[in-house]
Amino acid sequence: MVDMSAQASLAVTRVTDALRSGTASDVAAVLADISPGDIAHLISSSPPSTRDELWTLLDHEQEADVLNELPDDIRNTFLAELQPEAVAEIISQLDDDDVADILHELPQADTDKILGSLTDDDRDRFETALSYPDDVAGGLMSTDALTIRADLSMDVVLRYLRRHTRLPENTDSLIVVNRDYKYVGLLPVRTLLVSDPHVSVREMMKTEREPLDAMTSADEVARRFERNDWISAPVVDPQGKLLGRITIDDVVDVIREQADHSLAVMAGLGDGDVFTTVLATAPQRAIWLAINLATAILAASVIAFYQDTIEKVVALAVLMPIVASMGGIAGTQSLTVLIRAMAMGQINDRTEIWLVRREIFVSIINGLIWAFVIAVIAAYWFDDTTLGLIIAFAIIINLITAGIAGASLPLILDRLRIDPALAGGVVLTTITDVVGFFAFLGVAAYFYN
Amino acid sequence: MVDMSAQASLAVTRVTDALRSGTASDVAAVLADISPGDIAHLISSSPPSTRDELWTLLDHEQEADVLNELPDDIRNTFLAELQPEAVAEIISQLDDDDVADILHELPQADTDKILGSLTDDDRDRFETALSYPDDVAGGLMSTDALTIRADLSMDVVLRYLRRHTRLPENTDSLIVVNRDYKYVGLLPVRTLLVSDPHVSVREMMKTEREPLDAMTSADEVARRFERNDWISAPVVDPQGKLLGRITIDDVVDVIREQADHSLAVMAGLGDGDVFTTVLATAPQRAIWLAINLATAILAASVIAFYQDTIEKVVALAVLMPIVASMGGIAGTQSLTVLIRAMAMGQINDRTEIWLVRREIFVSIINGLIWAFVIAVIAAYWFDDTTLGLIIAFAIIINLITAGIAGASLPLILDRLRIDPALAGGVVLTTITDVVGFFAFLGVAAYFYN
Repeated sequence: MVDMSAQASLAVTRVTDALRSGTASDVAAVLADISPGDIAHLISSSPPSTRDELWTLLDHEQEADVLNELPDDIRNTFLAELQPEAVAEIISQLDDDDVADILHELPQADTDKILGSLTDDDRDRFETALSYPDDVAGGLMSTDALTIRADLSMDVVLRYLRRHTRLPENTDSLIVVNRDYKYVGLLPVRTLLVSDPHVSVREMMKTEREPLDAMTSADEVARRFERNDWISAPVVDPQGKLLGRITIDDVVDVIREQADHSLAVMAGLGDGDVFTTVLATAPQRAIWLAINLATAILAASVIAFYQDTIEKVVALAVLMPIVASMGGIAGTQSLTVLIRAMAMGQINDRTEIWLVRREIFVSIINGLIWAFVIAVIAAYWFDDTTLGLIIAFAIIINLITAGIAGASLPLILDRLRIDPALAGGVVLTTITDVVGFFAFLGVAAYFYN
Repeated sequence: MVDMSAQASLAVTRVTDALRSGTASDVAAVLADISPGDIAHLISSSPPSTRDELWTLLDHEQEADVLNELPDDIRNTFLAELQPEAVAEIISQLDDDDVADILHELPQADTDKILGSLTDDDRDRFETALSYPDDVAGGLMSTDALTIRADLSMDVVLRYLRRHTRLPENTDSLIVVNRDYKYVGLLPVRTLLVSDPHVSVREMMKTEREPLDAMTSADEVARRFERNDWISAPVVDPQGKLLGRITIDDVVDVIREQADHSLAVMAGLGDGDVFTTVLATAPQRAIWLAINLATAILAASVIAFYQDTIEKVVALAVLMPIVASMGGIAGTQSLTVLIRAMAMGQINDRTEIWLVRREIFVSIINGLIWAFVIAVIAAYWFDDTTLGLIIAFAIIINLITAGIAGASLPLILDRLRIDPALAGGVVLTTITDVVGFFAFLGVAAYFYN
């Protein structure tokens, strides 16, 4: 159930009220009062014109934090309107993983200009993060990790920390490295806080946590955080040298995007912004409609092939959408099961065989049940037992086809490096439509011609 | 793209290999070596028979931690096979939010037996958590929060912490309360670590963070964590008294379930376990097929009403699936946009009007484009201009209907407290099928009869 209670979106409600009935300064006053995350949510939950209005009403100091919380596509729209100097000023306040994210998406010329206007230190930091694609651990990490040596005692560590004015966000652990800066272990802050001041880091550190390789995919990083309830995790290069760390806040974004992705692309939608304008939305939807029109025409051609039979027994025209739709529904169920299992990282050579077999058995059982039910309905409706037997045959064939195709298509598409969530549905319904119409009308043609 | 690289699932691969070619003790040796989270993932990614095998091979000490990481439905299957005493022993090792989760799902008699076998202290802890449903903040929270008073100095706080042998997981902040145990503010551990030992908590604590009300929905809790990058958040009763705290690890589970939910129920699947047996799966799928059969028969009745017309112009039978399928596709796009926006908490009275209007405009544009394209195709295919004009009319009507219905159905269903992801698709395709067939065949009957 979607929650829309008043309490649910207090910040949003206050700004919405101010936008409706207040002046610009009323809105600005409310904005100054709520968190950057809430402002970012509010902006991304607004139509484009309201977004610009909200952005101009922001305090200058809020801009960097709000940008940091915005989804990539919306953030880049705002950045594109700023001068490189203004962008450089904003990103100097951000974590380097976020900066890498931003620079990854800007045109190369802008990136160079921005890198040029940074201090050498900042540039070095960002260049490490920029050297990895943004869908692997290296692209998600930031280099702000606090590192210590194993031979220090706890009170030395505490004194060392106190020399900082501010520790990095989400510092749940200090990373223990050796003199070559290779990863050795983690010292959880909560261990530090309860330890005897005189014991050494070596005695208390945890060494069982494997660090993440910088080339681990973002999806896999998300699954490991999720499974092991991590707050942060060290990232190393192939030699074990510490490169940085990934924190849960960035992982949560990956989890959300991962999950939203399947839902969006299965319907032929982009997985980005919901609030695109009419003129941007219409062509994007049109492409999906075009692809589906092509498959619908293919299915229609099968029907056209049996026009004579339909002319003789018009009941076939009445019943044929039932055959196609039952196949489509059953196939989509099998398809979605496999796509879910893939998204959750549950597919391996043992489980994929088990799942495909299960889907086929289920489709045989449901094929038999619904063939019988629909046969009885059709035979009574048109007072024609032959018609009942023909549709029974078509339903069995189509539901079993749906089970096989629905379960195996995602596996095949994935091996071909085609996104199963994107292409699976179209290919599947083409198969179930064509097979359904052939099985039904083909057998009917044999009996009635 | 689903990631299936070798590195991705090292733990899984090792156990899978051991299961295939090793003895039971090989498997047990690998299991002893990997994290509870990975074991739980492995169990939930296995068919039922392998699950039991893995469970029996677990070390006794691993059981509680693994159970804690398992999805509810699988966890309860294992618990149902244990004696209440064994369950009591396991849950005494868990956080109280997890225990509440478990007890919520067991039969009342078992819950009472387990509560009876606990110490008074444990029982009190769990009863607070048990008094809230598990889909609100109160049901997600644990009562293990560390609280301090504002008038303490930092070094007193550090000494107080050192008296503990172990701090609760995910302690990123200490919660500051007054003498009535009302929430006052948060002292981040990273502030504590860098502060002068002599300053007071009051000077350094953050008071701008609003606590969560215990009745805030789990969905809203997840969105606030996500937006504000929280690691933990205090939970209070209506009087502002501190009840406990929620930590990010439990919120990540909510985010994953929330996202998976729409995907699963839109296909008429339960949103639980992927690896249900054939005999458990078939009836569940059958229900969805039954509902869809009912709607397909409704659509077929519309066709049956125009049998005479189809007998005269059999091209109508060939083309009618195109009208229905274009409407279904366009409608599903609008529907999915609204369901995504709801899941992301982006719906309010301003945005819902904007989105419905956008969907209607988009459907008008695409209705006109595809009406023209399909009209030309139909007119050439059957050498019949009238037929082209009739299908053009039907496509425009059906795509606009699809846009209106797809965008407004989720809003209507949500107000009726019906899950839009579950019911939306069925209702929508019923509408687009019926409207499509009526518009196409009804007008055709007028011209050809």
